[in-house]
Amino acid sequence: MSASGLPFDDIRVLIHSCQGPDEAAYAAVKAREDQLIKPRGALGRLESIAAHVAAWQGKAMPRINRPMVAIFAGSHGVTAKGVSAFPSDVNRAMLASFSAGHAAINQLCKSFDLGLKVFDLAIDLPTGDITEGPALEEAACAATIGFGMEAIANGTDLLCLGEMGIGNTTPAAAIYAALYGGKAGEWVGRGTGVDDKGYARKVAAVEAALALHRDHLGDPLEVLRRLGGREIAAMVGAILAARVERVPVILDGYVVTAAAAILHAIEPSSIAHCLAGHCSAEGAHARVLEKLGLQPILDLGLRLGEGSGAALAASIVKAAVACHTGMATFSEAAVPTLN
Amino acid sequence: MSASGLPFDDIRVLIHSCQGPDEAAYAAVKAREDQLIKPRGALGRLESIAAHVAAWQGKAMPRINRPMVAIFAGSHGVTAKGVSAFPSDVNRAMLASFSAGHAAINQLCKSFDLGLKVFDLAIDLPTGDITEGPALEEAACAATIGFGMEAIANGTDLLCLGEMGIGNTTPAAAIYAALYGGKAGEWVGRGTGVDDKGYARKVAAVEAALALHRDHLGDPLEVLRRLGGREIAAMVGAILAARVERVPVILDGYVVTAAAAILHAIEPSSIAHCLAGHCSAEGAHARVLEKLGLQPILDLGLRLGEGSGAALAASIVKAAVACHTGMATFSEAAVPTLN
Repeated sequence: MSASGLPFDDIRVLIHSCQGPDEAAYAAVKAREDQLIKPRGALGRLESIAAHVAAWQGKAMPRINRPMVAIFAGSHGVTAKGVSAFPSDVNRAMLASFSAGHAAINQLCKSFDLGLKVFDLAIDLPTGDITEGPALEEAACAATIGFGMEAIANGTDLLCLGEMGIGNTTPAAAIYAALYGGKAGEWVGRGTGVDDKGYARKVAAVEAALALHRDHLGDPLEVLRRLGGREIAAMVGAILAARVERVPVILDGYVVTAAAAILHAIEPSSIAHCLAGHCSAEGAHARVLEKLGLQPILDLGLRLGEGSGAALAASIVKAAVACHTGMATFSEAAVPTLN
Repeated sequence: MSASGLPFDDIRVLIHSCQGPDEAAYAAVKAREDQLIKPRGALGRLESIAAHVAAWQGKAMPRINRPMVAIFAGSHGVTAKGVSAFPSDVNRAMLASFSAGHAAINQLCKSFDLGLKVFDLAIDLPTGDITEGPALEEAACAATIGFGMEAIANGTDLLCLGEMGIGNTTPAAAIYAALYGGKAGEWVGRGTGVDDKGYARKVAAVEAALALHRDHLGDPLEVLRRLGGREIAAMVGAILAARVERVPVILDGYVVTAAAAILHAIEPSSIAHCLAGHCSAEGAHARVLEKLGLQPILDLGLRLGEGSGAALAASIVKAAVACHTGMATFSEAAVPTLN
């Protein structure tokens, strides 16, 4: 255990000590909602989103002034098994594209006035090939979780989680299979678009990883370190830190949700501050969201990653808060009612 | 026939002479899409939306620089039959709220940088009670369609349609029942939130209107003038004018879609430039969208009107265009591929 990393036991304590929502803020939003100039309930999901943000920010008047997309980028040893349609040097090229403003997420952040931070998690140092050993040692995994916690240290009031890492839908699939059982093929998708042979290699890789680590998959943190990757570990930390700092989180798609699934498997309430930004077209994402009890805000057939679905959903979340805080009440606006 | 109004025959000619999409612009977007730095198809619905905007704007590089929400407000004689949970003087109060920036749509327009125009269609002069006679005379109906055409005259490159009018889900339900058959109760929803007795009055009103006008419902424009309302007629005009001016349209919910349904019943291709912004929680909106072959962009349980669902969807449409036009290609960004 390195001095710079949190040992798993400390992380477990943190997970189990997560505070609940601010019930008073939640009640205040519900009460105000019924006074706003619209038929009761007419803003549908926007109303529950506003209440969610209030409850987890701990503010009767929720605010989103510094929304941020955080992209965690990792590199995966399992790519040696031919599980992706793209080579691993795409990782560095994509980091450069994020810096240059060339990627989809850059356009989305510009469209919706979201901050963007990209975290390079040793992109030139792949994790171990999960079919041959653990992805990470415990110290490295814990340190990466700790790094993810630091990632939001500069302050945000709405955290959108994103990721990038060639090959990372394979570790995510392995995590789902380990947590939820069933055959590997039930959890594996086409990722960036592998052909049938590539898909067969992905399924075989997940099967091999599950077989290799089968005696150590009862503990979700062991699942994370053996089958996961650095970006997934860092996002576990980011979700936890957001909880501590009272920052609501919007999850992106298939890979981001694997981080939430690890936490959920340890303590379901630990991800109660998370919204599912969208339902990804990748593999079994819809099924995973169901397991987590999350209803996606959007369902647009995206399977890109980069936080793209979370960023799109952030526009809806910002709008929900803007409606709640900006609308007048019936009495303020002198709108008559029948009663 | 008044000199100020277009006669129905002229409107029919216009509907049947609508131009198709710009196939070259569509093809250009599809070709560029496959060069952008993402796995092919990974932006899902955003990709088809960008192509839609390009095809209907007639531009290989679609642009949304002047998006606008247009709210058409009307007043309905059928409210005398107790079909709404709110009194008709809400109409004027809501117009004042739009002007004051108090309503939900004001917050959404501010959030997404959309222009907002509100058109008062003789809000103090209710249409005829459709259970006792036609809503409008032909000259008035045609003139209102013409007014709706003028409404976008100042220029926009993305038109979001909205409406407001106490009681107007009843005419919309009557239109759907007239166009699609079935029992009145299959099309009637709770509107602003009527109780069981109010709901029964709505169903009875739609049944009475259908019975009264039954010999004149073979022509969709007659359905519009007999069972509709001024805001619905004006939106028929706005949709047509947008088509002529090459402006893509985002439909809002249950009432706006009634205007599209009238056009679709005359000539299905006349609404091909329209996107369905969302699926409303009101009544049978999902079923109507299916009849029109439209797949909603959002499904957030809204049932407010005011163009709220269309405005929310506009954020997605703007983002789709921003991604398409702002992203780099693989060669521009020097992102490697396997091929």
